[in-house]
Amino acid sequence: MSKPLILVTNDDGIVAPGIRVLVDIVRPFGDVVVVAPDSPQSGKGHAVTLEQPLRIKKVNVFPGLEAYECNGTPVDCVKLAKHVVLKDRKVDLCVSGINHGSNASINIIYSGTMSAAMEASLEGVNSIGFSLLNFSFDADFNPCRPYIEKIIRDVMEKGIPHSRLLNVNIPNPASGRIRGIRVCKQAEGRWREEFMEATDPRGEKYYWLTGVFQVDNLSEDTDIWALKHDFISVVPSGHDLTTYPSIPELKYLEV
Amino acid sequence: MSKPLILVTNDDGIVAPGIRVLVDIVRPFGDVVVVAPDSPQSGKGHAVTLEQPLRIKKVNVFPGLEAYECNGTPVDCVKLAKHVVLKDRKVDLCVSGINHGSNASINIIYSGTMSAAMEASLEGVNSIGFSLLNFSFDADFNPCRPYIEKIIRDVMEKGIPHSRLLNVNIPNPASGRIRGIRVCKQAEGRWREEFMEATDPRGEKYYWLTGVFQVDNLSEDTDIWALKHDFISVVPSGHDLTTYPSIPELKYLEV
Repeated sequence: MSKPLILVTNDDGIVAPGIRVLVDIVRPFGDVVVVAPDSPQSGKGHAVTLEQPLRIKKVNVFPGLEAYECNGTPVDCVKLAKHVVLKDRKVDLCVSGINHGSNASINIIYSGTMSAAMEASLEGVNSIGFSLLNFSFDADFNPCRPYIEKIIRDVMEKGIPHSRLLNVNIPNPASGRIRGIRVCKQAEGRWREEFMEATDPRGEKYYWLTGVFQVDNLSEDTDIWALKHDFISVVPSGHDLTTYPSIPELKYLEV
Repeated sequence: MSKPLILVTNDDGIVAPGIRVLVDIVRPFGDVVVVAPDSPQSGKGHAVTLEQPLRIKKVNVFPGLEAYECNGTPVDCVKLAKHVVLKDRKVDLCVSGINHGSNASINIIYSGTMSAAMEASLEGVNSIGFSLLNFSFDADFNPCRPYIEKIIRDVMEKGIPHSRLLNVNIPNPASGRIRGIRVCKQAEGRWREEFMEATDPRGEKYYWLTGVFQVDNLSEDTDIWALKHDFISVVPSGHDLTTYPSIPELKYLEV
């Protein structure tokens, strides 16, 4: 009997510490194949590469494991994994991350980590994106390991209902003590952006995107609430963006 | 009394014919400002540019109109428009497109056109993405003009309920005869991908993403059904990706 096939990817790039931890965690669960970007791809959302050719290269980054780096986006990695690397072999689980930084609330939309997982879920594969609320490459992943193992074990046993995608965010309490896991909804929030303005040596202005994240609701059923209270948040997520209650209200547009 | 402020953007780039038509259509409705990418940005999804500085340049592309080109993604354009160009002046409407090609069904996720509109909707701005089912830059936009005018007029009068975002796709019937407008939901569909494999002069393989779109359901309440029957599809869309029915089913994950 063949072991489950597990695809691992991320958006911080194949040499980021987070993907190394995730690979370690999933190894006992099946045959692991890694296809990840060759450079940081944070904030790439669901971008695919249409105007440039894609390249994929076998690399020896994880001893004893089949691993590939790709010059495209996280979504490109999942597409190349399916078609070029795995030649349409059935994938049993896709895990993406562990991202260095939060993908809670509306950040699922901007996140390469979550978009990679969503791309796999579109193909019917149970998919989980993991993110730790710590941007540092020196982040301590030890406190969250047993929780990630539990989530993966449960999902491999029971699957993910409906759209097969989980957005898992992990708090980073100073104490190191995570209080548990909460299944919740995406909080309403938004970026209050500013642009850092600077001037290049030729006198031309340029801008760097920056900003602070602002949460609009902090009710107990949201991911941001869970994280603020040192719980891991699990948000079942999907790809149907229709706002159903609006349909009857907009019927007047029809001619 | 000041006129409504209308932001126009797209993902095909500021010189694409589609944005020219859209600018023409919205001019009578208010003060129009254009901020659009300086190069094609199709398939960029909700990507933002974090690793590169952004530049924005005033250009004289639309006689008598304030217009800027930007080296970033469509979402970058909307962010720069808000913060750098308009200095947080209240935008009354954001229109994106007219995209050359369909953004119906799941394509909303990959689409730079729709992501730009979604970004504006996240700021509470009524936003509409328009797409014509014809990739050619010689496409005939005349049959759809009165319908786009109607939708914009209605939205400026009554607003968009809930998440303030409409995904409007326009059929391209050989007859040129559009039958009307239908308000509907996003159809389930997926890309059946293939990669075109080729070899570069140094003997290295590379890949181009290609594929055909496949629809899973064709019920009468979907955008794909409307388009196949020569109706314009209007899908009210949002940014809350939570799959609510899954929350109770996944409570077993909690510890």
